[in-house]
Amino acid sequence: MLGTSGNLSAVIQREPLRLAMSPSGVDKGELTAEQVLTIDEDARVVNDHVAKPSDESLLHIRIAKQLKAGAVLHTHSVWNTMLSDLYAGDGGINIEGYEMLKGLQGVKTHEHREWLPIVDNSQDMPALANTITTVLNKHQDAHGFLLKRHGLYSWGDNLAQAKRHVEILEFLLETLGRTLLAQNSRR
Amino acid sequence: MLGTSGNLSAVIQREPLRLAMSPSGVDKGELTAEQVLTIDEDARVVNDHVAKPSDESLLHIRIAKQLKAGAVLHTHSVWNTMLSDLYAGDGGINIEGYEMLKGLQGVKTHEHREWLPIVDNSQDMPALANTITTVLNKHQDAHGFLLKRHGLYSWGDNLAQAKRHVEILEFLLETLGRTLLAQNSRR
Amino acid sequence: MLGTSGNLSAVIQREPLRLAMSPSGVDKGELTAEQVLTIDEDARVVNDHVAKPSDESLLHIRIAKQLKAGAVLHTHSVWNTMLSDLYAGDGGINIEGYEMLKGLQGVKTHEHREWLPIVDNSQDMPALANTITTVLNKHQDAHGFLLKRHGLYSWGDNLAQAKRHVEILEFLLETLGRTLLAQNSRR
Amino acid sequence: MLGTSGNLSAVIQREPLRLAMSPSGVDKGELTAEQVLTIDEDARVVNDHVAKPSDESLLHIRIAKQLKAGAVLHTHSVWNTMLSDLYAGDGGINIEGYEMLKGLQGVKTHEHREWLPIVDNSQDMPALANTITTVLNKHQDAHGFLLKRHGLYSWGDNLAQAKRHVEILEFLLETLGRTLLAQNSRR
Repeated sequence: MLGTSGNLSAVIQREPLRLAMSPSGVDKGELTAEQVLTIDEDARVVNDHVAKPSDESLLHIRIAKQLKAGAVLHTHSVWNTMLSDLYAGDGGINIEGYEMLKGLQGVKTHEHREWLPIVDNSQDMPALANTITTVLNKHQDAHGFLLKRHGLYSWGDNLAQAKRHVEILEFLLETLGRTLLAQNSRR
Repeated sequence: MLGTSGNLSAVIQREPLRLAMSPSGVDKGELTAEQVLTIDEDARVVNDHVAKPSDESLLHIRIAKQLKAGAVLHTHSVWNTMLSDLYAGDGGINIEGYEMLKGLQGVKTHEHREWLPIVDNSQDMPALANTITTVLNKHQDAHGFLLKRHGLYSWGDNLAQAKRHVEILEFLLETLGRTLLAQNSRR
Repeated sequence: MLGTSGNLSAVIQREPLRLAMSPSGVDKGELTAEQVLTIDEDARVVNDHVAKPSDESLLHIRIAKQLKAGAVLHTHSVWNTMLSDLYAGDGGINIEGYEMLKGLQGVKTHEHREWLPIVDNSQDMPALANTITTVLNKHQDAHGFLLKRHGLYSWGDNLAQAKRHVEILEFLLETLGRTLLAQNSRR
Repeated sequence: MLGTSGNLSAVIQREPLRLAMSPSGVDKGELTAEQVLTIDEDARVVNDHVAKPSDESLLHIRIAKQLKAGAVLHTHSVWNTMLSDLYAGDGGINIEGYEMLKGLQGVKTHEHREWLPIVDNSQDMPALANTITTVLNKHQDAHGFLLKRHGLYSWGDNLAQAKRHVEILEFLLETLGRTLLAQNSRR
């Protein structure tokens, strides 16, 4: 996670919902246990902490509730930023026929068809959270989505699985991006 | 080896065949000695171990037997995934005229012509193992092969040589991939 | 910072101006506290030191004075060198619509429009410093500028902020460069 | 230096010539002091050592004698391999107008014009050494040369300078390679 970008969360209690959440504006590579916030389902800090939760906490909460995800990761990479832009007009990216897809939870064959939705970026978090809800209702088997020119969200039953999903999706996005360039040269 | 992808094996006994094999679903960067399985020529675990061998054990066994290889490595990289796709229609990739080829066992000059076969990917391991046998019979001097949109297999007399072969083939695939892109710009 | 390239400075006193400045010809990855020079506003070394300040000290001084910057960083990267060349004819690069822009001081939305001016390179430092003054007067909200086929200058209230600005601008330049290549393939 | 590829040498005595030389077939990342050979001007090992000097020792000796270089480095990289191929028809690569050129010994301005000759690869080392002599006589100000589809040779007064020259030439080759690709997209 470059500089202060990206964020992560993990469910620590379901009823009522409590998320451990990375704080805003902190270098994630240097994140310490004391800096982690506990937030409720309205993104209010409930532990004794002065730090501000990330603006994007509402998206984490929505994913955790709607998908019963145990952990959510959000990353900014050159490849996910670039492809979220190039394929925005299609509304998403189709990833199909790659062995690496089998690393996604529940996928048993490379013939799997993964649709990675792309959502327009916004600074209006409640509105964006509602858009995400609609998109995830429509694509209930998705393992992630992209915010246009912004980054990738992925999730899992726990942080280890969410991390694996991010690594796999980033690998496949880089592969798709490089293939797009080279296909032209083979024509 | 990214996430839980890729695997490796080493022959520990020839008659009857015994392979030390990486387990399924374990992060190879964190592989410990206790996690390594011992399997027989039917991919059954023969040491006292509850873990499941990789689905691809049958391919390792076939390579170890047919080519008398002492070690087999299987890697997923962006470049090998992408080129296995772009050149699948040709049935393989011709690598010729590179000094780096001399790092492959038995190669004495850059004028060597290395044919890297590409095989269609499949989840039917016994069938895939039979295809591999046919391909390796036809290309007896090959130092590796690609599974389409899946990855690279290479081998050697021992793990050090197999690792050297993987590094060299990965280097040459990246070089070929970038040359393909740039050749267009020079036309 | 590759080899002996790139340099950095930090204001240690405003009146009269004193800058801590990396010395010329030293590998910045191995920079020690003893090697750091203290210079005045005419780039003369004022601490007891035999080393020569970087030729580009005049640019650091100009930025520190004109923009009240607390720290200045100058980096050479493949992407900033290449894009400073490709876009030199436009006089700068427009960076717009990226979430990552919010990491730049004072930027609140991805809809921000960042203009990164490109200035012709020169070995005549007093002349180049005057050109920079003119450019920074014209683009008072800029967070950095490029010297053509040379590198990136960025700054901040302190070294941590200047480093964050460099990381963000380098990320965005790589993203723009790769998008430029791939856009062609999508047409 | 990838796997067992690449090699390096340093002059330890001029009359008669003695070179400390990396041995053949050893992983350079794990090179130990005991593995270093001492060779004479005919590439014979003169210290008490059973290892074989690199086949390319003759090229190191020629460069050390002809150019009075104190150290010689030879590297294989994806970018130098690829560009040595793409520009072989031109007999070399012109590198001009980059600030980074000032890191090469004796270069005072980015307006410097560096010609990096490209020589056809060969396994006949005495013949190749003679070709190199001819090329270096013709281009006496060169700081390096490329062997086609093989790699880069550079040198300096000592190992630190030779290393700096390699880093700078590799940086400039990658920059030229990426610019070549992107220029097309800007047309």
